[in-house]
Amino acid sequence: MWIYLNNCFVQKEHARVSVFDHGFLYGDGVYETLRTYEGRIFLWERHMARLRRSCELIGLDLPMRDEAWTPIIAELLVRNGLQDAGLRLTVSRGEGELGIDPRLCPNPTIVVMAKPVVTYTDQQWEQGKVLHLSSVRRNSELAQPPQIKALSFLNNILAKQEAVRVGADDALMLNMDGYLSECTTSNIFFLKNQQLYTPAVDCGILKGITRDVVIELAEKLEVCVEEGRYPMEQLLQADECFITNTGMEIMPVSRVGDCQIGQGKRGPLTGELRKTFIANLKGYLGPCLTALKA
Amino acid sequence: MWIYLNNCFVQKEHARVSVFDHGFLYGDGVYETLRTYEGRIFLWERHMARLRRSCELIGLDLPMRDEAWTPIIAELLVRNGLQDAGLRLTVSRGEGELGIDPRLCPNPTIVVMAKPVVTYTDQQWEQGKVLHLSSVRRNSELAQPPQIKALSFLNNILAKQEAVRVGADDALMLNMDGYLSECTTSNIFFLKNQQLYTPAVDCGILKGITRDVVIELAEKLEVCVEEGRYPMEQLLQADECFITNTGMEIMPVSRVGDCQIGQGKRGPLTGELRKTFIANLKGYLGPCLTALKA
Repeated sequence: MWIYLNNCFVQKEHARVSVFDHGFLYGDGVYETLRTYEGRIFLWERHMARLRRSCELIGLDLPMRDEAWTPIIAELLVRNGLQDAGLRLTVSRGEGELGIDPRLCPNPTIVVMAKPVVTYTDQQWEQGKVLHLSSVRRNSELAQPPQIKALSFLNNILAKQEAVRVGADDALMLNMDGYLSECTTSNIFFLKNQQLYTPAVDCGILKGITRDVVIELAEKLEVCVEEGRYPMEQLLQADECFITNTGMEIMPVSRVGDCQIGQGKRGPLTGELRKTFIANLKGYLGPCLTALKA
Repeated sequence: MWIYLNNCFVQKEHARVSVFDHGFLYGDGVYETLRTYEGRIFLWERHMARLRRSCELIGLDLPMRDEAWTPIIAELLVRNGLQDAGLRLTVSRGEGELGIDPRLCPNPTIVVMAKPVVTYTDQQWEQGKVLHLSSVRRNSELAQPPQIKALSFLNNILAKQEAVRVGADDALMLNMDGYLSECTTSNIFFLKNQQLYTPAVDCGILKGITRDVVIELAEKLEVCVEEGRYPMEQLLQADECFITNTGMEIMPVSRVGDCQIGQGKRGPLTGELRKTFIANLKGYLGPCLTALKA
């Protein structure tokens, strides 16, 4: 497996950073996860805008222009023989002496990884995921804004661990005010009486790119979407529920804790949205990077 | 400079971890900072207890017994020619595939670093530090408990950056309820009418080891210490203020934002506490590791 690390393509076993990298010492940095379909990046500009925004929010000057990333990703896909890949772009503060003043690190560390996408069986897709209502609250916007896709990810890790312990697939977190926020790496939607609901961005969530696409697609299907503040009880009475992220796209949720959601399997609108997502996918994809490369 | 990394002593430039180390990818791990005086570790058992506690709180099985650390630290001090050193012990979740489930990482990464301690001139010591009241609130105990000395340190980094921007030495953070918590890497005390005040642990702070020592020493000096919830206004009316951590020991604070504290320089009790700290220091130190080694 090839990895891009600071201007070089290296084999995985040689992809190493200094123990003085502030990404390692202090979780000081940001990342972005993307996906390619047949060599084409899904909503590249939106992911880039979010990466730039994450960098801005932690005061990190991103030393690469947007155009500089795609040739790297193209070469990485070709070297790894991948067409349908999950990508992770990591930008850490870089190497520097001990201490948390960002001026200690003049040069950010840049890493790009590509791996085959996780695929789900029809059965997994019909059955959906089981969520655990976590006792861990989502980071407050006042402390560590969830809009920063940050390397400092312990908040979500603590929630995920708790979910793993009780045998759930993932954790659903409430914000500090007790309203629904998001899962550890996905946004959440629920349907009640043909109306879709999803926590508003000011609930303290990462504004997911697939979340935005689902809102757009729902409008196409003439399903009204409300973004707001919702207590847990409202979700538990839902007819359908699903979670979204770049990797899973649109994934049904069958159960939250002990409570079955709707019929306890993929609901009809969830299925329709996923079909619409797939039907519209081409419009979201960039040029084929692997063909350009070849 | 020699670094200890996973059973080996390596030169700094070779001290590298995989980009798949979850310390780097997700800030998943903990650390501890210690100090030696003439080769003797300051309050070793208390630091070890806190490291074990941090590990426990993130569900990480620390693969080293307490006794295994000291020969490593001894060798590191000798190799680096250090007697008065700042030490950092880092335990990350270790290398593993992408994803935040800790089961992906079977083997934690262990790093030990030693560097010369930062020394302060008499003038710096008399003048004290300038704090900025940060707009960044300290992480909530419900989201990422500050008792975990975690690699995910972005909350404090955001506060520090803001302080640097306004020309202050460090940031003072309020907790989510608006009460004083701590600075980015130190605990805070203030004196009013011969009574010392410091935020209680349940304000959401790291229970500093030097903080505990100061509370013990104040009792020796027959100064009453109250641990509680204090608004900013109470600090601004203080006669004296100081911050504590293992590296700085007891450091005066002369100003918070635009507000001068007391006489705007090291106060008399702060000085007396520091003298008492130094006078009692021997009782806090372990055996001389470098002598044992030689």
